[in-house]
Amino acid sequence: MNTIGTLLRLTLFGSSHGPGVGCVLDGVPAGLEITVEEIQREVDLRRPSMYIGTPRAEADMVEVLAGVNDSRTTGAPVVLFIANRDTDSSKYERFRTVPRPGHADLTARNKYGDAVDLRGGGQFSGRMTAPVVAAGAIAKAMLATAGIQIAAYTQQLGRLVDEEERYLRDVRRTSKENPVRAADPGLALEMVNEIMAAKEEGDSLGGVVRCLAVGLPMGVGEPYFDSLESELAKMLFSIPGVKGVEFGSGFRGAGMRGSENNDQFIIEDGEVRTITNNAGGILGGISNGMPVDIRVAFKPTASISREQKSVDLERMEDTTIKIEGRHDPCIVPRGVIVVEAATALVLADMCLRGDFIAREHR
Amino acid sequence: MNTIGTLLRLTLFGSSHGPGVGCVLDGVPAGLEITVEEIQREVDLRRPSMYIGTPRAEADMVEVLAGVNDSRTTGAPVVLFIANRDTDSSKYERFRTVPRPGHADLTARNKYGDAVDLRGGGQFSGRMTAPVVAAGAIAKAMLATAGIQIAAYTQQLGRLVDEEERYLRDVRRTSKENPVRAADPGLALEMVNEIMAAKEEGDSLGGVVRCLAVGLPMGVGEPYFDSLESELAKMLFSIPGVKGVEFGSGFRGAGMRGSENNDQFIIEDGEVRTITNNAGGILGGISNGMPVDIRVAFKPTASISREQKSVDLERMEDTTIKIEGRHDPCIVPRGVIVVEAATALVLADMCLRGDFIAREHR
Amino acid sequence: MNTIGTLLRLTLFGSSHGPGVGCVLDGVPAGLEITVEEIQREVDLRRPSMYIGTPRAEADMVEVLAGVNDSRTTGAPVVLFIANRDTDSSKYERFRTVPRPGHADLTARNKYGDAVDLRGGGQFSGRMTAPVVAAGAIAKAMLATAGIQIAAYTQQLGRLVDEEERYLRDVRRTSKENPVRAADPGLALEMVNEIMAAKEEGDSLGGVVRCLAVGLPMGVGEPYFDSLESELAKMLFSIPGVKGVEFGSGFRGAGMRGSENNDQFIIEDGEVRTITNNAGGILGGISNGMPVDIRVAFKPTASISREQKSVDLERMEDTTIKIEGRHDPCIVPRGVIVVEAATALVLADMCLRGDFIAREHR
Amino acid sequence: MNTIGTLLRLTLFGSSHGPGVGCVLDGVPAGLEITVEEIQREVDLRRPSMYIGTPRAEADMVEVLAGVNDSRTTGAPVVLFIANRDTDSSKYERFRTVPRPGHADLTARNKYGDAVDLRGGGQFSGRMTAPVVAAGAIAKAMLATAGIQIAAYTQQLGRLVDEEERYLRDVRRTSKENPVRAADPGLALEMVNEIMAAKEEGDSLGGVVRCLAVGLPMGVGEPYFDSLESELAKMLFSIPGVKGVEFGSGFRGAGMRGSENNDQFIIEDGEVRTITNNAGGILGGISNGMPVDIRVAFKPTASISREQKSVDLERMEDTTIKIEGRHDPCIVPRGVIVVEAATALVLADMCLRGDFIAREHR
Repeated sequence: MNTIGTLLRLTLFGSSHGPGVGCVLDGVPAGLEITVEEIQREVDLRRPSMYIGTPRAEADMVEVLAGVNDSRTTGAPVVLFIANRDTDSSKYERFRTVPRPGHADLTARNKYGDAVDLRGGGQFSGRMTAPVVAAGAIAKAMLATAGIQIAAYTQQLGRLVDEEERYLRDVRRTSKENPVRAADPGLALEMVNEIMAAKEEGDSLGGVVRCLAVGLPMGVGEPYFDSLESELAKMLFSIPGVKGVEFGSGFRGAGMRGSENNDQFIIEDGEVRTITNNAGGILGGISNGMPVDIRVAFKPTASISREQKSVDLERMEDTTIKIEGRHDPCIVPRGVIVVEAATALVLADMCLRGDFIAREHR
Repeated sequence: MNTIGTLLRLTLFGSSHGPGVGCVLDGVPAGLEITVEEIQREVDLRRPSMYIGTPRAEADMVEVLAGVNDSRTTGAPVVLFIANRDTDSSKYERFRTVPRPGHADLTARNKYGDAVDLRGGGQFSGRMTAPVVAAGAIAKAMLATAGIQIAAYTQQLGRLVDEEERYLRDVRRTSKENPVRAADPGLALEMVNEIMAAKEEGDSLGGVVRCLAVGLPMGVGEPYFDSLESELAKMLFSIPGVKGVEFGSGFRGAGMRGSENNDQFIIEDGEVRTITNNAGGILGGISNGMPVDIRVAFKPTASISREQKSVDLERMEDTTIKIEGRHDPCIVPRGVIVVEAATALVLADMCLRGDFIAREHR
Repeated sequence: MNTIGTLLRLTLFGSSHGPGVGCVLDGVPAGLEITVEEIQREVDLRRPSMYIGTPRAEADMVEVLAGVNDSRTTGAPVVLFIANRDTDSSKYERFRTVPRPGHADLTARNKYGDAVDLRGGGQFSGRMTAPVVAAGAIAKAMLATAGIQIAAYTQQLGRLVDEEERYLRDVRRTSKENPVRAADPGLALEMVNEIMAAKEEGDSLGGVVRCLAVGLPMGVGEPYFDSLESELAKMLFSIPGVKGVEFGSGFRGAGMRGSENNDQFIIEDGEVRTITNNAGGILGGISNGMPVDIRVAFKPTASISREQKSVDLERMEDTTIKIEGRHDPCIVPRGVIVVEAATALVLADMCLRGDFIAREHR
Repeated sequence: MNTIGTLLRLTLFGSSHGPGVGCVLDGVPAGLEITVEEIQREVDLRRPSMYIGTPRAEADMVEVLAGVNDSRTTGAPVVLFIANRDTDSSKYERFRTVPRPGHADLTARNKYGDAVDLRGGGQFSGRMTAPVVAAGAIAKAMLATAGIQIAAYTQQLGRLVDEEERYLRDVRRTSKENPVRAADPGLALEMVNEIMAAKEEGDSLGGVVRCLAVGLPMGVGEPYFDSLESELAKMLFSIPGVKGVEFGSGFRGAGMRGSENNDQFIIEDGEVRTITNNAGGILGGISNGMPVDIRVAFKPTASISREQKSVDLERMEDTTIKIEGRHDPCIVPRGVIVVEAATALVLADMCLRGDFIAREHR
């Protein structure tokens, strides 16, 4: 369903072409300082860039409907709402009958029947990630009180791969300064060109977002089914378009030997640290104090303007489809802030569960 | 915590060197036919192979403590228990002070303090997957009533990669007939040799398990946070040693263009099907009727007999460690049946949630 | 927290003097017909009556922010919002320092600290029941598709007790036709006078709401912790002011003998029925097909205008308090529709869980 | 289902005439000192008294299958198992066809079909409370570390009512010293006679258990749906035979005026206290530091040896039934320790949720 989390619980609602999208974030400790501007700043980072994104021009103004008073949380659930304004549903009626390849049109209609709202992707739209980002701003503020920082960047876009080892301090700002969220300005330029090229050919691109979390103390994560990896993966795979998640050396590590992949321990500045970080900061499902290192694979945008084979569900016969609408040729750049928010929400919940962030006033 | 699932709920318990390991499986519909032999057969497939596995010789006899009467489920929670017999805890005391690289010793002790049971890995041991496999046997029986089949195989072991496209009907039996769970007998031989070589060098190997589920109707999976990918990933990442999960084209798809990665629709035998299956059978988090296709990356076994750097937590100084104990040089072959079981448990839960398997007698 | 339910999940939000109150109702099957007018009609039944209620004049206009399109649910979460308009927070500042007897001022401030919003009772206000009633309208529509009806009435108000045995068909309409929700017009008049008398004396009254649900098939309710009684009681005790819940003969039955209290079975019109209904329609936590019969005790309104002893939390010394604000001298009449809604929400969830209402389109 | 709790999670399993009954208690902090003897002592208090209880002679020996090592919890789930020994299923076969009035035979068979295990009441048996009591012993040990004590006693048995105001310190020991768990030895004698009389007449009795919890700090309880009353009631109503629950003045308070029922505040020994305790220690769903005061109504035992009307489900015709088997003429005395355990489990969970008991080692 549309709720996730144990002590910090997020409930998403809305649809792409209904009145708006929003969320309820329950479990935020009372007294946290948070302004609408901070939330808005994060949500703005999700907006499409002029040249490389969708022409749909949503202002995405965040309204706080509950839970915050005088820029402080009250302990009651926080409700954030983002009205939809620039909706154009005219082109979606056809997709009920002729589903778009790579989209949820077919499966959603099968599951919910005639009453399903497919306009703009309905509740399956990437637009549902806007309230995730808004809620993520609050989670980040919670984590900041415990000295935990999160930053993600576009590590791969189509065939372009950022091969450099990067640290949070390097990517934190740079990735927000270019429209593709690359860690390096030179690479950013190449990536922009790659997107423009795909767009011109009526095609789309996928990519990989890498997300780092630094400052997480040792001990965050619960045993077995609520391991840090389990909880993060559940959240990350809920982001539309995500088809792969790995931690540390991940799939690459599967080809390594234990002697290469094991992170050996040393004492450094009086703390236990590991020499390498192939575990991605997580041992036995519990944080080990090293940076949490996550890679998230996004498939190429399903909506492309090239002609594709599809079927007419009424006549049950083959046909073709050309999708017009307004779409991003690549969602990876916008996915960067969504991955950060999703990660922040899970880490904040897990920090509450592990008593690393106080839930009560005392 | 140690419970997962919504309508089919699994609770794991036990530890490697305590009285035993087991589980409670709640939500199994009454009247399902299941024998202890069927469950035992699955659990036996998880036992280590003589040459390539751990010398720990556990009989792994499954006892049914509740929920089954005359080989039929009663509707009450099913409880399965597997006693530990061949425990040798003598070598584990040291790991409290000198944690093993790649293991949970450090993080578990940090989280649970002195009282933590680290013998044999305690509740972080791979032995916890034995009751998962036992419960999986019941989930498979539930799925079979709806015509759903699951089969996994070792697709990669160290550097050896099975490049063939494989179908469930091909791998279902073959993978159970060789000790490495390879889909092909020739490759199996190579893999056995690879493991023997690593073992001789006091080293270990990782690998990738591919799991296919066939027969799942369209419509299984819930929106957003309870997408099929989210629920499967949460479960799969709880398996000790798993560091990556992808569906369909996954990370490879991230480098593709939309026109390549989209699965175009056609009508075949009066049904909507896709020409390719890059989506891994899941669109918008909901099954589309094509085979579910999952790849799971296992890291190389952390326990190796080579000397490694570690730290003495009492003196807070650098030291080295050589792990003796009894360990598998590669857990991937045993992981195959665990991945099948984990997948079956999630799919059975999701089928109950989507009304594809009846929960009640009527 | 602020979420309840398994397959039909209600999340409440808002506070008495913030922007508004509302809820998210997740799990409503797609295609249910529901108009805003139907929801509004229920919410209107919760509004205070002119003479006997609070002078706070809230229009309580329900807005549907998501999940309904063309008067049909889409399968996405339904979001209902009721703006606050007639808020007067001037009188509440003092209660931070001098808590009102019988209110949550003291405990809420202790739990949430300075940031807590106590204006109008904040998130502890009876106003939080408005979205419960709105959501209840949808639950009632779900139940109606399965032939299940719910009706409650004021069975006791202060010392006035309605001793008659009543059936759903008798109270369904009558209780909505008088401001105290009595089952009988003559008794209604007495109850109005009783309230007026208490009000004049600066005092308040409590009472008992009896709720009946008819048409529930046999088999609704899950074992042990999710028994029908457990789930109903959890929901009902969340209503502000509720201090007792009983089913069937309840506390009275505790003084009876088994031979009196047991409901003996007979065959009637080809169905198994019981001669009496001391079990309140529930055996072993599962509905037996007889009417569900619940009694809910409301304490007298805590806010009274008489002088009461309280304490000054800053000086930690005894003081007195006279509460002015705007309050109902008796919330029981308004509680009737809230009890109906709460009961409907639980029964709809349990019917989904027991496959008595279809969740999916197929 | 058979799981309850948020941070302290209890899963019950077993049935009356299967191999045994037991539970998993997840979330117990590591390092808690607990011996099997302590657990056994509580379970022994649930055993029937020689003269007034069932002749079924179960030793009820508790085995700890997991989670405790050297009398200290390890942080892993604790598993407790109690084997069934003295089972006599011969008399139960008939109840499949001719259901016993007041029992779950009819509804259970309707819900689970032919495969249901009705022997001895199956999973609906009062025997399921034995593992609740065992788990309760651990919860009590957790609460004891925070200075919280719980004691219950038989306040009413049939028509005999204990009218005295009682305090925890008075009833704690006395109630354990007589077989009916009365607070007063004189009354205990009367109650024993009352039970003997009912037994002789082939009849049974109900009653009321009052439970007090002292030492709970202010601030325990979560808002709205997870109020202390909601959580306690959900657990208490899951106990077989419970048909009513009230807090503080409860149903009696419904007939009082606000000026009588409100608990006015005073400063006493530098603490805020209330003069009366009509709220039963709970304001706004949150503990206020006064004793938690709960009353629980048990119906008279359904199994009586008198002839009763029932139906033959195969022939669908009226018939009569005389229940032989072995039963308690009154379960209230045995219910006392069950109510204590149930209360302890909820309070321990809520204390973990409110950070009043530390979950982690640090």
